[in-house]
Amino acid sequence: MLKVAVVGASGYTGVELLRILHCHPEAAVTCITSEQSAGKPVSDLFPSLRGRYAQVLENLEPVRVAEKADIIFTALPHKAAMEVVPTFLKLGKRVIDLSADYRFNDAATYEQWYEPHMNPHLLPKAVYGLPEVRRVAVKGAKLVANPGCYPTSVILGLQPLLKHKLIDTTGIISDSASGVSGAGRGAKVDNLYCEVNEGFKAYGVGGVHRHTPEMEQELSLLAEERITITFTPHLVPMDRGILSTIYGRLLAPATTAELAGLYAEFYGGEPFVRVLPAGDVPSTAHVRGSNFCDIGVVVDQRTGRVIVVSAIDNLVKGASGQAVQNMNIMCGLPEGLGLEGLALVP
Amino acid sequence: MLKVAVVGASGYTGVELLRILHCHPEAAVTCITSEQSAGKPVSDLFPSLRGRYAQVLENLEPVRVAEKADIIFTALPHKAAMEVVPTFLKLGKRVIDLSADYRFNDAATYEQWYEPHMNPHLLPKAVYGLPEVRRVAVKGAKLVANPGCYPTSVILGLQPLLKHKLIDTTGIISDSASGVSGAGRGAKVDNLYCEVNEGFKAYGVGGVHRHTPEMEQELSLLAEERITITFTPHLVPMDRGILSTIYGRLLAPATTAELAGLYAEFYGGEPFVRVLPAGDVPSTAHVRGSNFCDIGVVVDQRTGRVIVVSAIDNLVKGASGQAVQNMNIMCGLPEGLGLEGLALVP
Amino acid sequence: MLKVAVVGASGYTGVELLRILHCHPEAAVTCITSEQSAGKPVSDLFPSLRGRYAQVLENLEPVRVAEKADIIFTALPHKAAMEVVPTFLKLGKRVIDLSADYRFNDAATYEQWYEPHMNPHLLPKAVYGLPEVRRVAVKGAKLVANPGCYPTSVILGLQPLLKHKLIDTTGIISDSASGVSGAGRGAKVDNLYCEVNEGFKAYGVGGVHRHTPEMEQELSLLAEERITITFTPHLVPMDRGILSTIYGRLLAPATTAELAGLYAEFYGGEPFVRVLPAGDVPSTAHVRGSNFCDIGVVVDQRTGRVIVVSAIDNLVKGASGQAVQNMNIMCGLPEGLGLEGLALVP
Amino acid sequence: MLKVAVVGASGYTGVELLRILHCHPEAAVTCITSEQSAGKPVSDLFPSLRGRYAQVLENLEPVRVAEKADIIFTALPHKAAMEVVPTFLKLGKRVIDLSADYRFNDAATYEQWYEPHMNPHLLPKAVYGLPEVRRVAVKGAKLVANPGCYPTSVILGLQPLLKHKLIDTTGIISDSASGVSGAGRGAKVDNLYCEVNEGFKAYGVGGVHRHTPEMEQELSLLAEERITITFTPHLVPMDRGILSTIYGRLLAPATTAELAGLYAEFYGGEPFVRVLPAGDVPSTAHVRGSNFCDIGVVVDQRTGRVIVVSAIDNLVKGASGQAVQNMNIMCGLPEGLGLEGLALVP
Repeated sequence: MLKVAVVGASGYTGVELLRILHCHPEAAVTCITSEQSAGKPVSDLFPSLRGRYAQVLENLEPVRVAEKADIIFTALPHKAAMEVVPTFLKLGKRVIDLSADYRFNDAATYEQWYEPHMNPHLLPKAVYGLPEVRRVAVKGAKLVANPGCYPTSVILGLQPLLKHKLIDTTGIISDSASGVSGAGRGAKVDNLYCEVNEGFKAYGVGGVHRHTPEMEQELSLLAEERITITFTPHLVPMDRGILSTIYGRLLAPATTAELAGLYAEFYGGEPFVRVLPAGDVPSTAHVRGSNFCDIGVVVDQRTGRVIVVSAIDNLVKGASGQAVQNMNIMCGLPEGLGLEGLALVP
Repeated sequence: MLKVAVVGASGYTGVELLRILHCHPEAAVTCITSEQSAGKPVSDLFPSLRGRYAQVLENLEPVRVAEKADIIFTALPHKAAMEVVPTFLKLGKRVIDLSADYRFNDAATYEQWYEPHMNPHLLPKAVYGLPEVRRVAVKGAKLVANPGCYPTSVILGLQPLLKHKLIDTTGIISDSASGVSGAGRGAKVDNLYCEVNEGFKAYGVGGVHRHTPEMEQELSLLAEERITITFTPHLVPMDRGILSTIYGRLLAPATTAELAGLYAEFYGGEPFVRVLPAGDVPSTAHVRGSNFCDIGVVVDQRTGRVIVVSAIDNLVKGASGQAVQNMNIMCGLPEGLGLEGLALVP
Repeated sequence: MLKVAVVGASGYTGVELLRILHCHPEAAVTCITSEQSAGKPVSDLFPSLRGRYAQVLENLEPVRVAEKADIIFTALPHKAAMEVVPTFLKLGKRVIDLSADYRFNDAATYEQWYEPHMNPHLLPKAVYGLPEVRRVAVKGAKLVANPGCYPTSVILGLQPLLKHKLIDTTGIISDSASGVSGAGRGAKVDNLYCEVNEGFKAYGVGGVHRHTPEMEQELSLLAEERITITFTPHLVPMDRGILSTIYGRLLAPATTAELAGLYAEFYGGEPFVRVLPAGDVPSTAHVRGSNFCDIGVVVDQRTGRVIVVSAIDNLVKGASGQAVQNMNIMCGLPEGLGLEGLALVP
Repeated sequence: MLKVAVVGASGYTGVELLRILHCHPEAAVTCITSEQSAGKPVSDLFPSLRGRYAQVLENLEPVRVAEKADIIFTALPHKAAMEVVPTFLKLGKRVIDLSADYRFNDAATYEQWYEPHMNPHLLPKAVYGLPEVRRVAVKGAKLVANPGCYPTSVILGLQPLLKHKLIDTTGIISDSASGVSGAGRGAKVDNLYCEVNEGFKAYGVGGVHRHTPEMEQELSLLAEERITITFTPHLVPMDRGILSTIYGRLLAPATTAELAGLYAEFYGGEPFVRVLPAGDVPSTAHVRGSNFCDIGVVVDQRTGRVIVVSAIDNLVKGASGQAVQNMNIMCGLPEGLGLEGLALVP
């Protein structure tokens, strides 16, 4: 039985880790921390856990946490994660970090979009944990940087097209939309029910969202050339889900059936990527609460464009589920352990 | 491994059974029927099942169904269930019926609120399957009548008060509210998104909702006297959840702490009833997708009334989860097998 | 043209006043204040006002405000309203206060439920502004205390029964539910989209909600005897709307048709109360954005109870619309001026 | 006082016309038809109208309708509108048709995307009623083809760029999203609350949505060259609103400030187009229930693309509000009469 710590459990990715790990047959949560709620039973913060999690939230004292756990999930804001991860590594623990702090190969990019990096020497050792792209590297990693939610949907959506060099890499657009849980659990007027409900809007328009360089890093590696994309996130009045509608110009004519076939073959062995039949496109509703990424691909013959639509649950495949998938891989467990929950429909 | 059939899988309780059973380690779904969609892959109807359920929906031919399964869930509209259950029983199969057809001890009551009963002789053999009330009887049952969603919330909410004879049985009111999935998956204007969203209403006002006699039967048995209640259901713009706010006049003074303590003791050994700390009342959000019934109890000292608030997920503890709980009991399995999923929060 | 000030415009009742007054042919908004956003254009705070409100939010300096306006709406938190109202009155202005500060006839009641009252001498001069109960007094008032949202729905729902002495006044229960805008626009975790969405809960259970004494004051006056009620508020995942389901024991037998007739007659001349045909009950959806109070009444013959269901928009008839209705009455304008907007459906 | 008929009032655009016209000071609704509900009071169908619309729904007998009205709104499904419009015109009535039947200059295009056209001779006489594009033609029109909801948002969003020839016309993409009322009021499983709620999806992907040729016709006229676009609609779990996020490649460098300035100037005199300050992008929440089109424009300097975001209420500026705006223009009334209602916030 793996001993697992969840560091920073007062947010939505934290409680989602606890939800998933409760049904994981080979993991036991032995430590849960929260700076703002230390001393309270975790079920006071999240009554959904009542009766199943008796733990009290602890302060984040890295040495004590490390004593209690074999593997540590850091579900902290960026910067806070950056600070604490090296200690865990030094103490010989494996870490899966859900923040952006260790996702970049290049400290300069991180610093351009975030802030000064305290531990640039760790970046080469961190593995960007998207199993469908680099499963082998994850297996041997001590530090996994768990991908962002939008990047997960966009990279999985584009991977087959880029690997097969089927699209013009200069004109990629991803028009993406997320449920509100992606905005976190902080007390902000902008995220109040009445501010968000019954409205739909774009934000971070014009290439300013911090997930942009993360996507570009990974897409460039897949394409073996430098890629710049246009990415526009939107906010949807729903709790969970990300849908990315991705546009690319085909370099050569192709049909929807051909591309759907190519995708099905590419992802044929993947346990958590489902390629839809030719012509179908996914809904976030069908992945809500599950670890699946559903992908549909359609060619617009009138314009020579391919449109890829990919759907995930931002808190599962886009965060905590993917983190557990990475844990399974790192620890030699069956990759899908604890992740077989199907979407809650309706 | 139990072989299980889901008969009538095109509605929300059907797909919910499939969702739950997918993670049940001792049950395999061997047959799925749907009259209206026979011949189609079940994942065409419910894309959430794609990649995990390869089955094609079958016609409801009772003998063929019975050949394939040890235990049969009938998730049919009332009357349709009534017709087919006897055949399954004759063929030696155990049946858990999610309709109202076998819930009444007395055919006359059924006929007053529904329609003529074809098999009144089976009523005495059917067990009203609320494990927290009659677990032993469920264990030996061949036919379990799975309780209605509203009655589950109301009966569990009132049981301790009635068993301890603490309230005036003539003045009970349950003001209950349900998410929209309780209205089923039929194509009706009234259940369109735009008709339901952003509105709250009562319906079936004045003692006309069909769950009323079902509650009264069970509450009367608990109280050992004939009980008539005032029950008003409401419709909430959300997918899942039932909250019942139940009012009773205390026969003798009591404090919130005393009654919360009494409830905690009463349900202390129950795996799926969570009594909240004194003064807290539940939200459906904390049971969404789970098999829990959360209960809070408060005394209004100004009026001498006790107010019990109970929350369930109408599709889980109010239908398919409770059905699986009954299956586990009937088959001698650990009662919580496959039912440990915590609420999807948020 | 009336010159109108809206004092405290950064909350939902403030912006709702601005929305309504924009279409009022005899009122011009000449001053808008907000302590937290003074100096900003009001359309920065509420982009819905862009192009129609050019005003900049001002600090709350009572004398300057009074110079600019004939009539003043105070949409402040309680206590803040209490402080500022006397100055406006001294300067000869008429005031419509949307807080609770001047709603009670008796300072002791206010102090028991809120806090010490600074201006108890003004209480006898303030008129509780429910036009359907005391239109004449409103006409002559200098200070109108605009009723709370829950009380509006409950008092209008019960008035005919109490005036006709048809129910036992000792056993009244109001089970009410509100949309989230009733919780205000403060940045609190509890009111975040993901905390509220897809859940339904009770709060303030057991006679502790501050609207309880307000209802009791008015119901007692109508009944000409002291009334204590059981009131349980609930939170509905929707922006707007209050539905009260009110239970009373009939003193003598009556039919639904008789009571529906009595209500129709009672409210026959009221421009903003709509009594539904016998057997129908209202939905908040049909009053959303409008100043109507819709009422349905049903008798449960099995239990001898009458169930009254009343629906309002908490921000319109429950706050800002009623305030404008009071303004019209106070100023001798047609009562419905600017209030004829029908519900936004869907 | 204009006498107005609303033909086909059982859908959402029909009831929205009635809502708007109720507050129009120069129009009186003298006839309301509905084939499926003829004989019923319109307030039975839409209780929001109770107390203000006493009319009974009539059968659609064109001659009788024409006798009662000066101007006729046809809010019928396509084909049904096509059939009845010529009769109204022959009888000398002016018609505003909310269907697609008279929107195309070219019968061949209509027939390719819809079905055979019965009255191609009327197409040259019909005016595509987007006031911000062809106000003068609307003024003299006998038959106005009221634009589709998506086209309204896209054409208004692109007009300044195309008129100033600032973008490559071969690479335009509109990624648009609509609330559920756009899908109509028919009883379909796909539009049930539980099917739509808490999900986000694309539909009509790959250039197959019928609004595509309508946009292309109008965009081509603006650009004075043939334009083919990539258009992907999405469905948002909310009642009302369309947001279009539109991508174009700039032919020459430009800044966000320059383009925002250009838009502000272009639409400076328009009563219902609001250009946001440079850098801001709109939300559908701020136009909900209003006749505004809010537009924001941003340049992505990294990719040389301009992103235009435009927001409307699909039932108001995207349908019934625009129809009333056209009526005002046709009848020489102030263009904004009856349309000054601000968005319902929240």
